[in-house]
Amino acid sequence: MHYLVTGGAGFIGSNLVDHLLARGFRVTAFDNLSTGFEQFLTEARKNPNFRLICGDLLDRQALTDAMRGVDFVCHLAANADVRFGTEHPNKDLEQNTIATFNVLEAMRQNGTQRIAFASTGSIYGEPETFPTPETAPFPVQTSLYGASKLACEGLIQAYCEGFGFRSWIFRFVSILGERYTHGHVFDFSHKLSCDPTRLEILGDGKQRKSYLYVHDCIDAIFTALDKADGKVNIFNLGRPDVVEVKTSAGIISDTLGVSPEFSFTGGERGWIGDSPFILLDIAKITSLGWQPRHSIQDAIVRTTQWLKANQWVYEIRK
Amino acid sequence: MHYLVTGGAGFIGSNLVDHLLARGFRVTAFDNLSTGFEQFLTEARKNPNFRLICGDLLDRQALTDAMRGVDFVCHLAANADVRFGTEHPNKDLEQNTIATFNVLEAMRQNGTQRIAFASTGSIYGEPETFPTPETAPFPVQTSLYGASKLACEGLIQAYCEGFGFRSWIFRFVSILGERYTHGHVFDFSHKLSCDPTRLEILGDGKQRKSYLYVHDCIDAIFTALDKADGKVNIFNLGRPDVVEVKTSAGIISDTLGVSPEFSFTGGERGWIGDSPFILLDIAKITSLGWQPRHSIQDAIVRTTQWLKANQWVYEIRK
Repeated sequence: MHYLVTGGAGFIGSNLVDHLLARGFRVTAFDNLSTGFEQFLTEARKNPNFRLICGDLLDRQALTDAMRGVDFVCHLAANADVRFGTEHPNKDLEQNTIATFNVLEAMRQNGTQRIAFASTGSIYGEPETFPTPETAPFPVQTSLYGASKLACEGLIQAYCEGFGFRSWIFRFVSILGERYTHGHVFDFSHKLSCDPTRLEILGDGKQRKSYLYVHDCIDAIFTALDKADGKVNIFNLGRPDVVEVKTSAGIISDTLGVSPEFSFTGGERGWIGDSPFILLDIAKITSLGWQPRHSIQDAIVRTTQWLKANQWVYEIRK
Repeated sequence: MHYLVTGGAGFIGSNLVDHLLARGFRVTAFDNLSTGFEQFLTEARKNPNFRLICGDLLDRQALTDAMRGVDFVCHLAANADVRFGTEHPNKDLEQNTIATFNVLEAMRQNGTQRIAFASTGSIYGEPETFPTPETAPFPVQTSLYGASKLACEGLIQAYCEGFGFRSWIFRFVSILGERYTHGHVFDFSHKLSCDPTRLEILGDGKQRKSYLYVHDCIDAIFTALDKADGKVNIFNLGRPDVVEVKTSAGIISDTLGVSPEFSFTGGERGWIGDSPFILLDIAKITSLGWQPRHSIQDAIVRTTQWLKANQWVYEIRK
């Protein structure tokens, strides 16, 4: 089996690459290294079953060439910047919607028909049902990021119906763990590495969100690929609990051994499109036998420890 | 009030232009005339409040220029070809998703913040609930057309949240009436004008679909614009009943005064992505006081009569 992982040099992508190689598969990572790091693939590169192709998903020809002989695509590459969507609306359109269209077309040209896709819980907008199931009422989008992931899901589903593809669509909560390079744990750890005496928190700090440890996430993906065989398989991936942002800030501070004074910018949302409460119903994936093994606290601690030991990512990520 | 109607030379668009002008508004029609007809705007052109701009929505500069001074956008332009989506998947992406993004960006640059959008009941895929309400469970897309309209809805909603826009999104059943130039009534009437002795019907002829007469549709749009003032206002537009395709074929034949022999290609669906049953729940729009005034039969008869009297559209539409 030959897997192509888009965004294979990124946080979740590079961890997935390592897991696929450990299972003995051939793996091609396709990444433009705009937010991914070659350093994350140091171990992978020692494996003869691995190759990295530095290319952009907007380059249809390069992508089509890279897809040759590929059996299965794990499409993780994306503009994952939820917060600054309104500063450059074209980024979500191009790097998510159009890039996904290009992936599907490259697959079609090569006869590759199976795809796993990293979608998001943001696709539910601000739902009224908690925990939010996959069959929640037709949502209204509240961010350009969520809207673009919705567009990607729709495209993938239509290719399944129109061209005989099969898909596994995963709606993630925020993922934490080794190689994590954006999001609130990154921001807080980075800020505290510069000034350990104070920490500004966006919103009122009471935003409640669910988090999942990256290796739990990848276990869940493998469980779904092994056990779900419908035409379109959609799964929420998360944990059954949440943490408040200010509690998380406390865990991060403790892990770093600092005691900052917290200040809050105020308001229920950290930014436009921020969802003050994210809790996904994970009954569907757990019914297949998967369970998360790491608590949110554990995931935050491990992430913070990794960031502390790898401060070079603060430098590169300006 | 100055309205810009994209697809203003099309079937629904040109009818909407006439209604807006009759209400005394200033109207700009923006159309690339790829499937619209200047002939549909003959009356409109006599009105000094009207102008037609021949331009393409993929031409961002032309669109931005056309948007100057516009208060309200009615975005109807689209690739509305549901059936042949799989023959050219890029068409739905470009003419629907990317075109809609361009409309939103042109609005943003001009400070125009209100938009009405022609979406589709196809967005519900193959729902399990009939009649299907706006809050149906999160659907799975079954056509590239539906997927692209879903992408457009998401973009519009995200612009409402991110940039203070307000939107009225209408999920149509198939619309019938004067200036109708594609869909099964067009195809059947056209085929029967060539050979009145036989008619091939795609599928088993038992597909049940709801239809709405174009002037009822426009009345509903005005009702929603007048009475709904949320940030994102979503309405199904249709009738509370359906007709079987083979019954419709009988009405068309009777109206044309011909007695063809029907044959069926078989199968529950006319084509890949065809939905065998479309019936939308219209309780939300009727709660605002709107009711359809024309039966499906009446709409089919009027459409067929118009096509019979305007056979030039068969010649131009190859």
